[in-house]
Amino acid sequence: MAQLDQPQLERMHRYWNAANYLTVGQIYLQANPLLREPLSPEHIKPRLLGHWGTSPGLSFIYVHLNRLIKERDANMIYLAGPGHGGPAIVANVYLEGTYSEVYPHITQDHDGMHRLFRQFSTPGGIPSHVSVPTPGSIHEGGELGYVLSHAFGAAFDNPDLIVAAVIGDGEAETAPLEGAWKSLSYLNPIRDGAVLPILHLNGYKISSPTVLGRASDERIRRLISGYGYDVHFLEGDDPMQMHHAFAELLDTCYEKIRACQEHARSHGVQGVPPWPAIILRTPKGWTGPKEVDGKRIEGTYRAHQVPIDGVKNNPEHLHMLEEWMRSYQPDEIFDENGRFISELAELAPQGTRRMGANPHANGGLLLQDLHLPLFTDYALGVKKPATERHESTRQLGMWMRDIFSANKEQQNFRLFCPDETNSNRLSNVFEVENRCFVEPIISDDDNLSPDGRVMEVLSEHLCQGWLEGYLLTGRHGIFATYEAFAMVSASMTIQHSKWMEEGIKLPWRADISSLNILLTSTCWRNDHNGFSHQGPGLIDTVLSKKGTVARIYLPPDANCLLSVADHCLRSRNYVNLIVIDKQPQLQWLNMQDAIDHCTRGLSTWQWASNDQDVEPDVVMACAGDIPTLETVAAAWWLRQHIPELKVRVVNVVDLMTLYPPYLHPHGMEEAKFVEHFTEDKPVVFAFHGYPRAVHEIVHGRANEERFHVRGFNEEGTTTTPFDMVVLNGMSRYHLCIEVLRRAQRVRGLTPALIAECNDLLAKHHTYVRAHLEDMPEIRDWTWTD
Amino acid sequence: MAQLDQPQLERMHRYWNAANYLTVGQIYLQANPLLREPLSPEHIKPRLLGHWGTSPGLSFIYVHLNRLIKERDANMIYLAGPGHGGPAIVANVYLEGTYSEVYPHITQDHDGMHRLFRQFSTPGGIPSHVSVPTPGSIHEGGELGYVLSHAFGAAFDNPDLIVAAVIGDGEAETAPLEGAWKSLSYLNPIRDGAVLPILHLNGYKISSPTVLGRASDERIRRLISGYGYDVHFLEGDDPMQMHHAFAELLDTCYEKIRACQEHARSHGVQGVPPWPAIILRTPKGWTGPKEVDGKRIEGTYRAHQVPIDGVKNNPEHLHMLEEWMRSYQPDEIFDENGRFISELAELAPQGTRRMGANPHANGGLLLQDLHLPLFTDYALGVKKPATERHESTRQLGMWMRDIFSANKEQQNFRLFCPDETNSNRLSNVFEVENRCFVEPIISDDDNLSPDGRVMEVLSEHLCQGWLEGYLLTGRHGIFATYEAFAMVSASMTIQHSKWMEEGIKLPWRADISSLNILLTSTCWRNDHNGFSHQGPGLIDTVLSKKGTVARIYLPPDANCLLSVADHCLRSRNYVNLIVIDKQPQLQWLNMQDAIDHCTRGLSTWQWASNDQDVEPDVVMACAGDIPTLETVAAAWWLRQHIPELKVRVVNVVDLMTLYPPYLHPHGMEEAKFVEHFTEDKPVVFAFHGYPRAVHEIVHGRANEERFHVRGFNEEGTTTTPFDMVVLNGMSRYHLCIEVLRRAQRVRGLTPALIAECNDLLAKHHTYVRAHLEDMPEIRDWTWTD
Ligand SMILES: Cc1ncc(C[n+]2csc(CCOP(=O)(O)OP(=O)(O)O)c2C)c(N)n1
Ligand SMILES: Cc1ncc(C[n+]2csc(CCOP(=O)(O)OP(=O)(O)O)c2C)c(N)n1
Ligand SMILES: [Mg+2]
Ligand SMILES: [Mg+2]
Repeated sequence: MAQLDQPQLERMHRYWNAANYLTVGQIYLQANPLLREPLSPEHIKPRLLGHWGTSPGLSFIYVHLNRLIKERDANMIYLAGPGHGGPAIVANVYLEGTYSEVYPHITQDHDGMHRLFRQFSTPGGIPSHVSVPTPGSIHEGGELGYVLSHAFGAAFDNPDLIVAAVIGDGEAETAPLEGAWKSLSYLNPIRDGAVLPILHLNGYKISSPTVLGRASDERIRRLISGYGYDVHFLEGDDPMQMHHAFAELLDTCYEKIRACQEHARSHGVQGVPPWPAIILRTPKGWTGPKEVDGKRIEGTYRAHQVPIDGVKNNPEHLHMLEEWMRSYQPDEIFDENGRFISELAELAPQGTRRMGANPHANGGLLLQDLHLPLFTDYALGVKKPATERHESTRQLGMWMRDIFSANKEQQNFRLFCPDETNSNRLSNVFEVENRCFVEPIISDDDNLSPDGRVMEVLSEHLCQGWLEGYLLTGRHGIFATYEAFAMVSASMTIQHSKWMEEGIKLPWRADISSLNILLTSTCWRNDHNGFSHQGPGLIDTVLSKKGTVARIYLPPDANCLLSVADHCLRSRNYVNLIVIDKQPQLQWLNMQDAIDHCTRGLSTWQWASNDQDVEPDVVMACAGDIPTLETVAAAWWLRQHIPELKVRVVNVVDLMTLYPPYLHPHGMEEAKFVEHFTEDKPVVFAFHGYPRAVHEIVHGRANEERFHVRGFNEEGTTTTPFDMVVLNGMSRYHLCIEVLRRAQRVRGLTPALIAECNDLLAKHHTYVRAHLEDMPEIRDWTWTD
Repeated sequence: MAQLDQPQLERMHRYWNAANYLTVGQIYLQANPLLREPLSPEHIKPRLLGHWGTSPGLSFIYVHLNRLIKERDANMIYLAGPGHGGPAIVANVYLEGTYSEVYPHITQDHDGMHRLFRQFSTPGGIPSHVSVPTPGSIHEGGELGYVLSHAFGAAFDNPDLIVAAVIGDGEAETAPLEGAWKSLSYLNPIRDGAVLPILHLNGYKISSPTVLGRASDERIRRLISGYGYDVHFLEGDDPMQMHHAFAELLDTCYEKIRACQEHARSHGVQGVPPWPAIILRTPKGWTGPKEVDGKRIEGTYRAHQVPIDGVKNNPEHLHMLEEWMRSYQPDEIFDENGRFISELAELAPQGTRRMGANPHANGGLLLQDLHLPLFTDYALGVKKPATERHESTRQLGMWMRDIFSANKEQQNFRLFCPDETNSNRLSNVFEVENRCFVEPIISDDDNLSPDGRVMEVLSEHLCQGWLEGYLLTGRHGIFATYEAFAMVSASMTIQHSKWMEEGIKLPWRADISSLNILLTSTCWRNDHNGFSHQGPGLIDTVLSKKGTVARIYLPPDANCLLSVADHCLRSRNYVNLIVIDKQPQLQWLNMQDAIDHCTRGLSTWQWASNDQDVEPDVVMACAGDIPTLETVAAAWWLRQHIPELKVRVVNVVDLMTLYPPYLHPHGMEEAKFVEHFTEDKPVVFAFHGYPRAVHEIVHGRANEERFHVRGFNEEGTTTTPFDMVVLNGMSRYHLCIEVLRRAQRVRGLTPALIAECNDLLAKHHTYVRAHLEDMPEIRDWTWTD
């Protein structure tokens, strides 16, 4: 254990003072940053925004991690769960010098400090949270709950890295946070790095005490050790005592981490080793005002945001603020130019060891391209469209198997899935890769090993959080999940999209691999699980995100899926949604046609259309595998029954091509759009998701009211596959009826055919209730000329 | 402790056999239900769907709870976390007689059993999960994770009720489930009932082992006791031994529950008492086939779904199935007519003590109307529109305060909120009601007591899950949350909507109170928290739900909010989204006008329009408080600057009125719609949420392409309120520009005005960066004539 002398601890204390000073300054001041004059109302910002309560604790930890890093040459990054303590992290990144390197106008002097204060939470300035513009951050901590899952994702496959994850005791009440402690059971001490959870019990969330804040040490020890952690407690409010004790505790934890790793690295993985975790109890708003207007502040929920309000108009409050700020002795920590005095500055680590400058927190810097086997090698040989049935995702599984092999050495690819890899027909990956599990393994287990890179935990939150952490630190992966339950972590998809939307604006943030979400077991084919499993809602959620990052693909078959997946895994900075079912399904395109089709985003399928020499009477559009099936089968039926009706079939893979170009970079120019959809002909559109989404996408196109969309209408249960499309009015017969109703030119011929379709629907209804499965002509339908 | 004699245990075993037999029958058979003939392929369903693995465990517990209920006259309901074990619960509800009472055609005889088997997971039949059609269910267990939060919600304010909550070990990995254990810290042993968690460790989820399945008893004890539970273990696979031990264990737990309650009820609440929890380890697919095709089934993940496949075509498998089914000795549990023999049938409780018939599981039967104070008593006296600023939600808080008082005796109203009640300006409720907390309370705490009915836990999942459980058992409540983080539990909103969509189809399910979600701290006024806190996405999610249950209200001010909230709290079977910000905001309507406005759903605001004698040039529509502000301010500006331009202002409170009537019962007839929006005039629409949602809603209206919508475009950060609307192009000046660009009749006058608006926007931009707050003419704007 390192010898900690009193002078060093005192220097650390002053460093902490500096961070706290800068935190308060950011919240309150727009001028007079160094308090060179007595504080007066015009120095105060007109709107006081920011969170003080969590900040001193965040800074305390930062300062101490700095010491640890410096002494041990440790490779560490810092994730602030209570990201509302933005000014604290910005203060520390500024003190260590990173901030001025990234933002040269925020110099380490009087003027720079002035700008630092003014920019915080103000127009044209920086956000209040530890967000994208904060160097060293891969986690903004805005929507609470993900700090541990992000931390573990960052640690995976980074054997040297230690991720310090500060968890607020309020945050600790969120479901995603509680669900992330068990990540330990998936952390391999040989090939992965370490996570050091620091549960920061300052007792309160916004106004209420926290459950863990009020729990006894004994109860907390039981809880956290129940996950396998070796739990360490520290509580106090006397700064010097706390400095001493926390420095020692960090040394202890560091050594325990290294011991866990060394033991496993020399003796092999033997279950989950006793990784340390810290429970730190300090007062909320520590070192801040003790009392304001007769009410206790420090150590209470009242310290959460801006502890002294009305400073501009209340001279007494203004005076309290000044006293508070001066208690940090700014004159002794900043020199006359406002520069951090070197005696303190040198406590920070150097170069990329600074937590704000660690490349793992700007993962794109470390990103290595995936070695991607030629996806065309996994193609299905489709000789004739719509004649053979195959499980499309199985082809993807084979390709992914070989991605695992090709990147074995790079160790930078993982598949995340809530225990559905087999169910989703991706099981070929198990030929070369295992499921990861660091708990005991028994003989019945299927492809399970501490070395696996298929991450199966029954938590969409954890799968996605791990993947996000993995991506943000410069690696690659896929999250494969049942379509309906992708909504479980929809808010994470939103937050990650927002992160990306901001990230791409910052030139210093290097590109990272896209968040690839594969939705299988879709609404149309969850006929066996029923209504709760039928929900294509994530499409609507992602549609609302910015065109700069949001992508939605609906490949209709295996070859298109391969082409799309290849594109997505090569892409950067996007959120890619890929939607396709896992059941055997008709295959439409050979590989070359699939590539052309996916490159264009949408195509007219000549072979399914009969409008070769003329303008079509009706355009039949489709997006998604089942809608494609129903559309093509409808076109086929119409061709048999009313060949004089001219129908064009357009298939959409890349949903965003339907947007006007000013809304999405994939958006199709109007002229091209009209080439496919005509100017004014009715379009009967079968859509995978909720139908009205298409109306919002095609808004602004010529004669938008001619789009008649069928899709998932919230009708579902456990039934047959065809009954699902019938219930939702999207069956081939419904589409035929819709087309026939719109086909003005041949309207003499249509009533009889509409009646026939209705008869077929009635026949289906009776048949499935009698036979409990679909009619053979439906089940086994293929295209014939 | 009750004396359990061997004959009784044997009878219970045979009862369990009956349940298992019926479970297998439902999965496999379409004929020959009693195996009166040798099994042959035509008896087998064409598609084998269902989950065997979890079922025997679910039934084991059911049978034993029956005994407990009967012996103690206990008031219990059963929540099956692994709801995919639907056939097991249906089997038990059938055996106890409830099923035939609810569904008279499913008689307790040969033909009824035949229908019972055939209907399971088949077209026109019943779903595979423990869903809405299952008597006794308030939890379908489709999307895993909510069984504990639902259970606690059901137990709140039901002092006599014991809710048995079976948790799958896979389910136990989900974040919402892990986040729900701590509900104990909010369960008051005096006024609330009890939850008995039964963690069912069958070792596997779908293909992988589970974390807790592999954890030692010691680790599990630490974990679960860390939440405060008194943990009891039982493990085994020998049925008779297990019957004996489980019966004893249930007796023990029952007595411990009653002891916890009695102690508190005679001595007062003294922290969280040691509530029992059960950890039950049994083999997955217990009593099912041991081995199939050389692979172990019972006790492995292979038992999860249909353990013997291909039965129709594989004679050996058919034979195994027959042996398996006969192992339950159907001839000795059902008489020659197929009736459950009375010796066993009498083991079930009677009447409403049967878990399938307990009225708490059909909560509408117990529902008592809320006493609602006259909401008009809380009105703001708005003399003139748009002249005073008030916090609208504060008025709601006062009304809610008095709702708490008025229903003090009924004890059937709670407010659920992730520690934001104060922040959301609902703090007047604390004049009469406390926050609930059963952990230690200290003097600094603010309105905290074990008796409180304001439920503040920092978990949207837990808040919503509790509320759902509370509603489903026939009570009332509100979930108030920051708008952006409503997406955290969006999937729960979806699942609850689906439950309601199905529930209203079943005449035997009595109406329950609506799920009321109040979204405050909205995107437009999260200017202080920044981009992660700015997301109106839940609107899109709820829009996709069926018109029969989904409602979205955007009251623009306090009086409208009161009127809407009154309506929502009186409503039944809906999911009501109410969106309004908490900051001081201009008030538009006096109470009578507000009531009229909300009753209509949308109105033309004459006072803000200047088209009294003529057709308007442009319609300005708005939905949401901030869009209304910007729209009215724009109309005012236009009136000052170009009075010859005729502008009509239409405000929308009830978003669903915009739908065509065939899509939503609130949908406005086209003629009425045209009265407000005209037939063909341009409509500039300022919308609270993502703008394109409006296009999907107005699709089908006359000339839908004339709707030009502004809304939240994913532009945000920490800035001033007005800068937020500027960034998203929805500011009054943007709206003016849009109107001027569309105003053909006066186009000679518009270029100069457009330039002026652009200048004002530039002025704003410079001003906020210089002054860090909005220009006074914006901040303090009011309507003047
Ligand atoms: C998911 C989510 N719900 C609600 C909030 C609103 N919120 C912001 S800070 C806070 C309290 C946080 O408490 P804690 O984690 O203890 O942080 P600290 O006390 O360190 O500030 C809440 C509820 C949020 N940011 N995220
Ligand atoms: C949120 C969610 N994610 C995924 C699934 C898919 N799924 C259905 S059953 C199951 C395994 C459940 O395991 P467990 O809770 O242990 O139940 P049991 O073993 O008793 O069947 C999974 C992952 C689901 N139903 N819900
Ligand atoms: Mg806290
Ligand atoms: Mg299990």
